Amino acid sequence: MIGCGCPVCTSADTRDNRLRSSALIEHNGLSILIDAGPDFRQQLLRENICDLDAILLTHEHKDHTGGLDDVRAINYFANKALPIYCEGRVFRSLEREYAYAFSEYRYPGAPEFDIRQIDTEPFVIYHENGFHRSGKVRQYAKIQEPREVPENASVLVTPIRVMHYKLPVLGYRIGDIAYITDGSKIDDTEFVKLKNLEVLVINTVRKERHISHFSLQEAIDVAQRVGARKSYLTHLSHQIGTHSQLLKELPAEIEPAYDGLVVTV
Amino acid sequence: MIGCGCPVCTSADTRDNRLRSSALIEHNGLSILIDAGPDFRQQLLRENICDLDAILLTHEHKDHTGGLDDVRAINYFANKALPIYCEGRVFRSLEREYAYAFSEYRYPGAPEFDIRQIDTEPFVIYHENGFHRSGKVRQYAKIQEPREVPENASVLVTPIRVMHYKLPVLGYRIGDIAYITDGSKIDDTEFVKLKNLEVLVINTVRKERHISHFSLQEAIDVAQRVGARKSYLTHLSHQIGTHSQLLKELPAEIEPAYDGLVVTV
Repeated sequence: MIGCGCPVCTSADTRDNRLRSSALIEHNGLSILIDAGPDFRQQLLRENICDLDAILLTHEHKDHTGGLDDVRAINYFANKALPIYCEGRVFRSLEREYAYAFSEYRYPGAPEFDIRQIDTEPFVIYHENGFHRSGKVRQYAKIQEPREVPENASVLVTPIRVMHYKLPVLGYRIGDIAYITDGSKIDDTEFVKLKNLEVLVINTVRKERHISHFSLQEAIDVAQRVGARKSYLTHLSHQIGTHSQLLKELPAEIEPAYDGLVVTV
Repeated sequence: MIGCGCPVCTSADTRDNRLRSSALIEHNGLSILIDAGPDFRQQLLRENICDLDAILLTHEHKDHTGGLDDVRAINYFANKALPIYCEGRVFRSLEREYAYAFSEYRYPGAPEFDIRQIDTEPFVIYHENGFHRSGKVRQYAKIQEPREVPENASVLVTPIRVMHYKLPVLGYRIGDIAYITDGSKIDDTEFVKLKNLEVLVINTVRKERHISHFSLQEAIDVAQRVGARKSYLTHLSHQIGTHSQLLKELPAEIEPAYDGLVVTV
């Protein structure tokens, strides 16, 4: 945190350097990003990613959408608008906050969003043309080797309704992974969608109660109720302490996530 | 640039790692930031800065305002809203893009902007209460040693009208430094404000003509007309080539700026 000298913010352990929460899920050959906060560019550069099939947004808060201007690089190299899946309310927020991207007269280089409104119904993402199939590889485009994407590759996404205090937000289940962030309450009916998970990602910011996020104990309770083989805590603030200390305090099947963590299911 | 394998984007020279343009000017004991793009948090963390007197915005484009949500950390440690100076049109853009910061019912932790509308008239920024004088130093606040700020410290700021294609934007002169970004044209009348400069910072993105930015030659022409002791080029894109190559091509009094560059006048 800017201006903070706490043990987390001054830690030499790189797992304590926390950018805004986001996750890339690779499944059935597709590459799907969840959320694009202000660190979007930095995260994609770090992981050497430029080839996405879609972005799923959980909700409209800046720490989850503030980096969408940088989609322009993906537009450029992929030579297509990037599909962005979100609820209607989130779409209207993007229309306000990125008005220039929705303008009838977009200036050259403005980002191109291909918004696809969703609700809590499951939906399918198909692999669509990207530069690796279009034959229009730009000079210097990094990906020389096309991804191996099976014919008619697709991914089923199941939205999970989660309450972020009074704001309804979405978590997402893809295959046997579910990613839930910015929740403070999940209705009983939604737990049905979280059965037989290999991996659950669940948010917490600190040990003390928080009005719009699960406390550490509440996140542990959700994780244990879901009973995934492994659960990871995300959206950690500096208030929750260092990675190494937090790890010691958790049951074996629950771990703090960290920037750059790769999980294979 | 995400997805790019060009000589700049793959350079091992740290001067070729280009975050969004921004500048901190320390003058008469005050600390004034120009622009707060999406890399705002990363830049303040890198330079260990948490104590600003004001932010001056040049215009409303995302690469200059996209990081303002992170002002919340400065609000927290300084225990005050941060003065942000901008034109009325930019203010209205912030009202749209950060509506939650201007809402009558701000949620806890939302950023607090103290917007001060300016035009092209010179104005004065005074040093105001910060945490280092309020006695409310938060736990873990990094700055233990108060800055040495002279009694009644103030800074005179002279806005410079610059055209960013059709969009009127502002450059700023503080003391003998002027910072101009995102310009493609400067009227003759504005050059009067740029006399007797020690340092001019001027934008260019590439060698080829650009609709809304000075080309390299146009930026050199502006720099030579202004005739500052030293001029630095900012807002460089990867298209302009590497720092070391560009440096070789420039007259002795003009240099490419780079992230983290410190200039003392």
